[in-house]
Amino acid sequence: MSEPVLIVGSLALDDVETPFGRQENIVGGAAYYSSVAASLFAPVNLVGVVGEDFPQEALAMLAARGIDLAGVEVVKGGKSFHWSGRYDTDMNTRDTLDTQLNVFADFNPVLPESYKHSRYVFLANITPALQLSVLEQMATDAFVAFDTMDLWIETARDDLVRVMERVDLVLMNDAEVRQFAGTPNVTRAAREILSIGPQYVAVKMGEYGATLISRDARFTLPCCPLLDVEDPTGAGDSFAGGLIGYLAWADRHEESDLRVALALGTITASRCCETFGTEALLETTPEQVYRRYETLQAITCMRELPSDFPQAFE
Amino acid sequence: MSEPVLIVGSLALDDVETPFGRQENIVGGAAYYSSVAASLFAPVNLVGVVGEDFPQEALAMLAARGIDLAGVEVVKGGKSFHWSGRYDTDMNTRDTLDTQLNVFADFNPVLPESYKHSRYVFLANITPALQLSVLEQMATDAFVAFDTMDLWIETARDDLVRVMERVDLVLMNDAEVRQFAGTPNVTRAAREILSIGPQYVAVKMGEYGATLISRDARFTLPCCPLLDVEDPTGAGDSFAGGLIGYLAWADRHEESDLRVALALGTITASRCCETFGTEALLETTPEQVYRRYETLQAITCMRELPSDFPQAFE
Repeated sequence: MSEPVLIVGSLALDDVETPFGRQENIVGGAAYYSSVAASLFAPVNLVGVVGEDFPQEALAMLAARGIDLAGVEVVKGGKSFHWSGRYDTDMNTRDTLDTQLNVFADFNPVLPESYKHSRYVFLANITPALQLSVLEQMATDAFVAFDTMDLWIETARDDLVRVMERVDLVLMNDAEVRQFAGTPNVTRAAREILSIGPQYVAVKMGEYGATLISRDARFTLPCCPLLDVEDPTGAGDSFAGGLIGYLAWADRHEESDLRVALALGTITASRCCETFGTEALLETTPEQVYRRYETLQAITCMRELPSDFPQAFE
Repeated sequence: MSEPVLIVGSLALDDVETPFGRQENIVGGAAYYSSVAASLFAPVNLVGVVGEDFPQEALAMLAARGIDLAGVEVVKGGKSFHWSGRYDTDMNTRDTLDTQLNVFADFNPVLPESYKHSRYVFLANITPALQLSVLEQMATDAFVAFDTMDLWIETARDDLVRVMERVDLVLMNDAEVRQFAGTPNVTRAAREILSIGPQYVAVKMGEYGATLISRDARFTLPCCPLLDVEDPTGAGDSFAGGLIGYLAWADRHEESDLRVALALGTITASRCCETFGTEALLETTPEQVYRRYETLQAITCMRELPSDFPQAFE
């Protein structure tokens, strides 16, 4: 099995400050986190753009993990996308201190010929117009997951709807889902998104976990409990990467496969949070994955109602 | 089976405004919601205080449901506790517009003799000093659940810790748990509470569900999905009531029993949210409970990892 996953999105250098410390020029970006997570389970075809300042070792490390870099453009004399952010003590709110798009401002994803037949795709958060251009270049009917952000919901809604019409799985956080549908009710909001075309909506709820909603089913998982969240940057992308990487490995996307994929995405996201950057994620072992999978099963295990539970209330 | 549950707390008349409308003088209060929910599963011994304005029909209805009112004091010429609140469109934030304690200001719970042997107790949110006075009056070693609020964490912490030392199950929302322990990490915060004495902490997370944490186990359940939340007032108390009512019915409080109880509390809370006041909660049928229990099982059902899932990552 194990089909390759096509991943398109940002590659960046981040300065991050959390209550656990501050690090500069951490290799990151949505496509970076999601590729590393997906590469645990499947080969990755990566499309992105970096400047000359992007560390060679980082690219070499990706290549060594089965991540194809034919789609990564290195702009001579250019500087990589740079993001600076700071997390509050509660880790749930973060302030963006600075964003320098640099070479990412002119990002125009071009798929190498071999990538066009990828049967699993993750479109990380970029403008919906670019996401559409990627879909236009595809030569096969792939299973496509995509992520977006509040800015595109506000400023590029028509394009966003056009992307939604063509994807299978929408990944959005709960605030975005509510914003998109203009209702506080996540179930109603997910139904509205499903009515546009996708088969599944995966609602990311930060520390409260994630919910998968389809036309006739629903599946909610909590996060893996962590005693220390050192840096949550990239958690949502690691979630997406683990999820799509598993589907590509299994080469199946029935609802029951999505349930396993959601759990594996939850696990890769938890690994991401344990250290700055992808340090812990990169070192993830199958034993750790198996153990966290069992932890999630224990945490969600419902008992049966007793057989003598009342058939009538007085 | 079915032991009686002792419930002590507020009985109130509420004015509530939500996007679904506005109602005045809704019969409510923490002890009211929790008693109605608990009475689905077990007899209730209720302790509270009301004024002469409290509707006779409401008290008669409680009595008809197996709720003993020997502990409810009706103050001649007094007015009942009155709360007015308004919910935002997202239903997660509410503004208290007015609070009139009235007869509740002098509430001094006195247990009728027969109540002192109740083996299941829910201390709804009142001052920790009053909660302690209830525990002092008990003549038996009961399983005690208790609720509190941000105000007591801030102003009566020593008394609160004294209550925690004597109860079995702490019910708090996630903000309160964090506030109490001074850490954003709910797992660490729950451990700190467990170290004081209780066997279980049930962390209420509003629309994100609830998590039960004990020394060696953890169980998380999402809410029952609702298309319309008409009025969430009393949801937390209905959760507590359903939970303790089930434990009293089963007369068991092992971790596996608490898992069932958490699900039943989740279901009674969902019924509470469907209408203003306790209208839907009162009409809850066993069929509805069974159906929502099955819904929760479907929503939380994890699939096994495939047997050929990698034992090694490349």
